[in-house]
Amino acid sequence: MLSKAQISLITSLQHKKFRKQHGLFIVEGVKSVREFIASDYQIHSLYTTAEARTKMGNLPQNLKCIEVTVPEFQKISALTHPQGVLALVYLPALEKFDWTQLRKQHHLLLDDIQDPGNLGTIIRTAEWFGIQHIICSVGTVDAFNPKVVQATMGSLARMQVYYTELGEFIRQAKLPTFGALLEGTSIYETDFGDAGLIIMGNEGNGIRAAITEQVDYPVTIPGFGGAESLNVAVASTVFCSEIARQKLKHG
Amino acid sequence: MLSKAQISLITSLQHKKFRKQHGLFIVEGVKSVREFIASDYQIHSLYTTAEARTKMGNLPQNLKCIEVTVPEFQKISALTHPQGVLALVYLPALEKFDWTQLRKQHHLLLDDIQDPGNLGTIIRTAEWFGIQHIICSVGTVDAFNPKVVQATMGSLARMQVYYTELGEFIRQAKLPTFGALLEGTSIYETDFGDAGLIIMGNEGNGIRAAITEQVDYPVTIPGFGGAESLNVAVASTVFCSEIARQKLKHG
Repeated sequence: MLSKAQISLITSLQHKKFRKQHGLFIVEGVKSVREFIASDYQIHSLYTTAEARTKMGNLPQNLKCIEVTVPEFQKISALTHPQGVLALVYLPALEKFDWTQLRKQHHLLLDDIQDPGNLGTIIRTAEWFGIQHIICSVGTVDAFNPKVVQATMGSLARMQVYYTELGEFIRQAKLPTFGALLEGTSIYETDFGDAGLIIMGNEGNGIRAAITEQVDYPVTIPGFGGAESLNVAVASTVFCSEIARQKLKHG
Repeated sequence: MLSKAQISLITSLQHKKFRKQHGLFIVEGVKSVREFIASDYQIHSLYTTAEARTKMGNLPQNLKCIEVTVPEFQKISALTHPQGVLALVYLPALEKFDWTQLRKQHHLLLDDIQDPGNLGTIIRTAEWFGIQHIICSVGTVDAFNPKVVQATMGSLARMQVYYTELGEFIRQAKLPTFGALLEGTSIYETDFGDAGLIIMGNEGNGIRAAITEQVDYPVTIPGFGGAESLNVAVASTVFCSEIARQKLKHG
């Protein structure tokens, strides 16, 4: 039986302000919760319906599990189709960025991405293609927003997502910067080399002017039809895929 | 002033059954509605708030325009954030597929895609990369679902989307078939040639077994991280992009 205070705490975590205040975020669904349990994240508590509990298999002994009724679960779930499994997870400690680790890879920089589904899909796709770090502008939607967590399909459990001032980050990183821009070299004729920063802009406005000035290589995805633009998660996919292709080709 | 019957007609079009019954579907948003007006589609009627009307510019003289209040508009809109512009558009006549046109291109075949956002994104992305025809299995979500129309960002106005029995279509098309499968040749080592059918499967279950048997070339997107799968719109993007890259390369 859940108290009113517990329900209120859990639903409050749908808002960034309360996630920060309580140091917790929500993960839902059998698969996602399992992946967070197996990750470096610390689980605060787990809420399941009796039926969904059977799908979770063996759980760590020290994990605080609360069984709730289906109507109770519907009150705490943020999903349209609740799956009966919800974990409260501690927000990761904000570590200092490890610059030594940054050098030899490609990293994704997101400039004010607004849509939670887009950010979640970008995190999941980036992981598939072997990108380990995503650096978001302060204005980008919070990665611990329940809709983002949901869209990552568990990838967030294994990815490093940072929030920082992008301009300063680019200056410190001292890596070639590739920006997704309308007027640039074709992505298929761009040599992405061994490492670099791939910058993707906001859904409506693209990359901010101040950040665009820091772009070494403007890169364009050639279009063949009447469509005016690509969704930002789709454009990020084309960049991740092309970088992966070049890496495989050059061994 | 909208009558109860008008409101009821418009909201009923959120359901496939009533779209078929009335031969109409809904398009919302300034940009999307403009693109449908400029397309081969026939517009039944246009509903706008006074404020949004000013954003529409000049409209064809014979277009039936109904100005509605903001509260009225909220009743007819299917969007979370209504933009004040909604058109009822006639469903296209189901033409016979023009086999002569099919031969020399790549076409996207969708086997039971369920998520409206995924289908909409696939239509928009396919248009960007110059794919003109999308052939959907009968079990694929309806392209005239308001959420699909919304996600295409106007691309549906220019794309040909067909619904048919995929197995029979593949047999008639007599083109090489490439299927997105987990065990296949790397997409980056696959020669897509001048024409072919690219088959993408359902979100959870992939391509059905009977259709998989018709695949000539199983193709895989190599993964580098811990992610178990890619979103189907993302996977479709990788196929469209790689085909476009090969076309550009071979002139």
